[in-house]
Amino acid sequence: MVDKIVDLRSDTVTKPTDEMRREMKKAEVGDDVFKEDPTVSKLENKAAEIFDKEAGLFVSSGTQGNLISLLTHAQSGEEVILGRDSHIFNYEVGGFARLGGLSARPIKEEKGRLPLEKLIENIKGSDIHFPEQSLVCLENTHNGHGGVPVSGDYIEKIGQICMQKDLKLHIDGARIFNASVYLEEDVSNLCEPADSIQFCLSKGLSAPIGSIIVGSRDFISRARKNRKIVGGGMRQVGVIAATGLISLDKMIDRLKKDHEKANRLAEGLKDLGFEINPNKFKTNIVYLSLDQMNYSTNEFLGLLKEKGIKALSHEDKIRFVTHREVSKEDINYCLEAIDNLIH
Amino acid sequence: MVDKIVDLRSDTVTKPTDEMRREMKKAEVGDDVFKEDPTVSKLENKAAEIFDKEAGLFVSSGTQGNLISLLTHAQSGEEVILGRDSHIFNYEVGGFARLGGLSARPIKEEKGRLPLEKLIENIKGSDIHFPEQSLVCLENTHNGHGGVPVSGDYIEKIGQICMQKDLKLHIDGARIFNASVYLEEDVSNLCEPADSIQFCLSKGLSAPIGSIIVGSRDFISRARKNRKIVGGGMRQVGVIAATGLISLDKMIDRLKKDHEKANRLAEGLKDLGFEINPNKFKTNIVYLSLDQMNYSTNEFLGLLKEKGIKALSHEDKIRFVTHREVSKEDINYCLEAIDNLIH
Amino acid sequence: MVDKIVDLRSDTVTKPTDEMRREMKKAEVGDDVFKEDPTVSKLENKAAEIFDKEAGLFVSSGTQGNLISLLTHAQSGEEVILGRDSHIFNYEVGGFARLGGLSARPIKEEKGRLPLEKLIENIKGSDIHFPEQSLVCLENTHNGHGGVPVSGDYIEKIGQICMQKDLKLHIDGARIFNASVYLEEDVSNLCEPADSIQFCLSKGLSAPIGSIIVGSRDFISRARKNRKIVGGGMRQVGVIAATGLISLDKMIDRLKKDHEKANRLAEGLKDLGFEINPNKFKTNIVYLSLDQMNYSTNEFLGLLKEKGIKALSHEDKIRFVTHREVSKEDINYCLEAIDNLIH
Amino acid sequence: MVDKIVDLRSDTVTKPTDEMRREMKKAEVGDDVFKEDPTVSKLENKAAEIFDKEAGLFVSSGTQGNLISLLTHAQSGEEVILGRDSHIFNYEVGGFARLGGLSARPIKEEKGRLPLEKLIENIKGSDIHFPEQSLVCLENTHNGHGGVPVSGDYIEKIGQICMQKDLKLHIDGARIFNASVYLEEDVSNLCEPADSIQFCLSKGLSAPIGSIIVGSRDFISRARKNRKIVGGGMRQVGVIAATGLISLDKMIDRLKKDHEKANRLAEGLKDLGFEINPNKFKTNIVYLSLDQMNYSTNEFLGLLKEKGIKALSHEDKIRFVTHREVSKEDINYCLEAIDNLIH
Repeated sequence: MVDKIVDLRSDTVTKPTDEMRREMKKAEVGDDVFKEDPTVSKLENKAAEIFDKEAGLFVSSGTQGNLISLLTHAQSGEEVILGRDSHIFNYEVGGFARLGGLSARPIKEEKGRLPLEKLIENIKGSDIHFPEQSLVCLENTHNGHGGVPVSGDYIEKIGQICMQKDLKLHIDGARIFNASVYLEEDVSNLCEPADSIQFCLSKGLSAPIGSIIVGSRDFISRARKNRKIVGGGMRQVGVIAATGLISLDKMIDRLKKDHEKANRLAEGLKDLGFEINPNKFKTNIVYLSLDQMNYSTNEFLGLLKEKGIKALSHEDKIRFVTHREVSKEDINYCLEAIDNLIH
Repeated sequence: MVDKIVDLRSDTVTKPTDEMRREMKKAEVGDDVFKEDPTVSKLENKAAEIFDKEAGLFVSSGTQGNLISLLTHAQSGEEVILGRDSHIFNYEVGGFARLGGLSARPIKEEKGRLPLEKLIENIKGSDIHFPEQSLVCLENTHNGHGGVPVSGDYIEKIGQICMQKDLKLHIDGARIFNASVYLEEDVSNLCEPADSIQFCLSKGLSAPIGSIIVGSRDFISRARKNRKIVGGGMRQVGVIAATGLISLDKMIDRLKKDHEKANRLAEGLKDLGFEINPNKFKTNIVYLSLDQMNYSTNEFLGLLKEKGIKALSHEDKIRFVTHREVSKEDINYCLEAIDNLIH
Repeated sequence: MVDKIVDLRSDTVTKPTDEMRREMKKAEVGDDVFKEDPTVSKLENKAAEIFDKEAGLFVSSGTQGNLISLLTHAQSGEEVILGRDSHIFNYEVGGFARLGGLSARPIKEEKGRLPLEKLIENIKGSDIHFPEQSLVCLENTHNGHGGVPVSGDYIEKIGQICMQKDLKLHIDGARIFNASVYLEEDVSNLCEPADSIQFCLSKGLSAPIGSIIVGSRDFISRARKNRKIVGGGMRQVGVIAATGLISLDKMIDRLKKDHEKANRLAEGLKDLGFEINPNKFKTNIVYLSLDQMNYSTNEFLGLLKEKGIKALSHEDKIRFVTHREVSKEDINYCLEAIDNLIH
Repeated sequence: MVDKIVDLRSDTVTKPTDEMRREMKKAEVGDDVFKEDPTVSKLENKAAEIFDKEAGLFVSSGTQGNLISLLTHAQSGEEVILGRDSHIFNYEVGGFARLGGLSARPIKEEKGRLPLEKLIENIKGSDIHFPEQSLVCLENTHNGHGGVPVSGDYIEKIGQICMQKDLKLHIDGARIFNASVYLEEDVSNLCEPADSIQFCLSKGLSAPIGSIIVGSRDFISRARKNRKIVGGGMRQVGVIAATGLISLDKMIDRLKKDHEKANRLAEGLKDLGFEINPNKFKTNIVYLSLDQMNYSTNEFLGLLKEKGIKALSHEDKIRFVTHREVSKEDINYCLEAIDNLIH
């Protein structure tokens, strides 16, 4: 029996705010398969505007947004270049291959980035032995690399390579607003070279459900059909979209606080003697290595759980994610609990 | 400028009721990818109970429910036997082939049914030239055949054939409760031989979003992973699931009224001189042939629209669907308007 | 112990002629993956010339030729319109769906033809519910319909529909030379409207292995890559191609004899009292219905086998195929044996 | 105009020997789709015997053998672990994804081997985010790593890991006999832990066409169907299989000579001042880096070609492959020509 629950497993656990619930209740709705839901249209347009792209499309999840983007950019049999540690490659059930017939050419990232020379090296010419290459995917912030924000300068360079090589560029921006807030750069600048971006409403932005993809009008029109084929076309979507509007209106700026809490956690863990470099964790994700400890990750997670603290393992590390429902006090509580555990 | 809108395009256009909106607002939620949303669990369990199956799974749409069922029952390269006029074969963008690698063997239905001898004829033995056959799909009520309800006796026979031939049986029960209400037979009896059933909350049952698939625990567990791969795994799903609970609690019995309205419409059209047999339209769908008319379907739809009446064409016919938001008065208004149109 | 074997199962059983064997032995060869095999190039060019298309490609089999053609014309997720009784739909293991992600829209043929009005009815407009349609397939001669040759006039009409509707036309011409010989029409005329044709060297034309697809230069270039992906790119292919050159030079005219033998067989069966219309079997395939007999197809095949006569069942019929290794005497022997069996 | 052609591009360019041509001419044949070709059966059985597996299957190419093995071991949606520099991952057009719906998890090899700890690290447990893993692929000899033979001891360890983790093991043994000859170890020992092996007849073994896969009876039976679906089922295959019998009878021992010639080439290049370690090239493949040269690979290939010497580039290196049609004198000629080029 624990007094307190601090859930640091993911920012996906955030529940809708009261305002979101109120807006859901009164949302104006229509049948979105007929494109008649005004609230989802408003949300899609607003997203497109924020990213300075022509159009947007509401989807059920980040995984669906990425899948649809890949299905829309690339024909079955083509190859996608992406990060070895990326979410698309590792955590989306291999949908690109199973559903899209796409092969993936993973490149080991450094600090969340595909090294430019490695990228160029992996762009091959046309040859009867090679699949056509159609797409490069970036992830920003890069979850597997500690939520590292990827700068606009770098994306600009990637964009130039893609343009020269006639490749599309997709950004898995599940947490792109965390990058934007940290870098103090508008998402429209940050994502300017991208042909499509997927971002999540249901993570730090606190909506209960949903992600959005943005891109050109033609891309979104074809993506809409690919959403239909995976069964992602829904009816009175306005009831959810209403919450997404609040996410975009009111929840972006507060991501800064999540970053502060994550930084507080990382600094605190360092103070407790862990070998951790807090500078590596610039947004809302912290990875803790247990290399010097006697516990396995599972044992450690178990001990944390006894204290009401929930986290996840990521390969051989513990992942903590801060979000709206975790307070500074909660972070202090965690640090205290861990202190007790290890000393 | 029309005084009145009567939307007979589909029962999917129904908006959530006030009670649904209230329940959404206060729904208890959690992160359903972690299986921690109590409201969606309650809904899935309730659905399983009603159908007397082991487990249920909430999905975004009927298309998604059917797709996931097919992906779960059949491996890529296998063949599915289904109706030539079925929704899965005609209106789900060929997802079975594109995403599932499944070939479809369509059989021309008679009154919404796969003729038994035709079914048996199309079940082939093992041969190096043939794909393995793994699945038979039925549709109940059968949309393309006028919303005809398919009886439990018939499904029982299909089930026996499937069992003998080691084939799974999936029912696309998007409107299974319309069948149940018309036939006065519990869905649990009606679907007893089926390995899986998909039914929609967002049609006559008036929920804004969602469908459910039910089946064995093992089936649902594998289906859950296939839902993840198509990006159908969502987070605080309880906000929608809350509306589905009301659908199951309070919206089933009222389907009877939709049937009465459809019957009223069909009888009225007959009285206006159309060659239409009202007995063919037992549930909430009416097809009107314009064979004897001087109008094309598109012209006729256009004229209806000028009167505020919305309908869809289906091949060479006009399809009208009744639902909660269409009143008896609305039906009378339609008949009057059509009377004016044609005389 | 039988005195004599008459193998009427298929014209694929024909063994290479002595001349073919001599030519194989001395064929000039090279590595065809590097496009350096002069004999296969000669064969591909000759085929292209005969069909008056820009280019040709040697493939391992008719199934592979059809598969590659479909993969080359249609993207995953698109729909192909073909005959319900066609070889591609029924006897090629559903490769179009499993490997190509294509859905098939089968139309019931009449006398080996897709009825024009049925074809038009099945060509749908663009709609979010429908897969894109990209291709129509014909089969000539039509195996499942008794080897019926399909006339150039009819193909011309199909070609016009395809052109209007922006659909490609592929002809499965496994036995196109049987059609050509019967109709006394050059294959170049017969196939003029087609974007691609597959024909077999290893059937009546007696080569041990291989088929060829012909089409535009661009089509063949892309098909070559699709041949590579299925592992159909081979090395010193000239050893086989040498036999194909003889097929094209010397084996076409003799197909007439196969037709005569088939006709002799059909007439003979009629004379024996079977209800069979010899006029239906214009080329080298004869179907015999056992409806009036006391034997099942399997029993009858067993009895034939005891006499050294081999045939196959096709649904509820017996299929006999004549070819180079079956003489008129063999046909007489068969008729005599069957006479003894049934009287 | 060159006096002499020395073709070091690949051992696939080897033409059939005179004996092979004689055997083709007189080969006993039948229709292999009916399993009635005695020569191909003899070849398949002989291969199975040599590898001490239950059964064998003749296929058109190494690419087809690998593709069919993957399709047979793994269901669409599953993941295959293989080498980042492997042929399957890089040079088989991504067929595993396009045709098989399989995702690939590439591991960077060291000396042609998947590092054991890396392999273990990449075997993941069951999780809703991960595709099921079904298969590990090795390559022996490893082409991309200089034809390095991979030892039986190592394969044994991989086999144990696979067994523990319930993964299948496939060996792309396109040049497995080169490994066997170098290691002086029977292929049956070398491949004992493997569930399937593909090896090529058309490389150093000099047959014009074909590869063989061996494995359990059940595996081969299912592989036969997958061969059919890709159109690899052929008819009178005996004409080719006859050459494969000679490959297995008489061409294995002579691979030693190819290794000697490659070694001679590598030593000679070292003597010419290139930074090359001849010990790295143990079989019939030599890679030459031009890092210290002023030429690009393409320029250098061009200059070689002027001398009648053909080779290929492989990433930033020149690849030379020795084989039956290259003599020691040819190697000396090459060294002399290169000496002239660079000095």
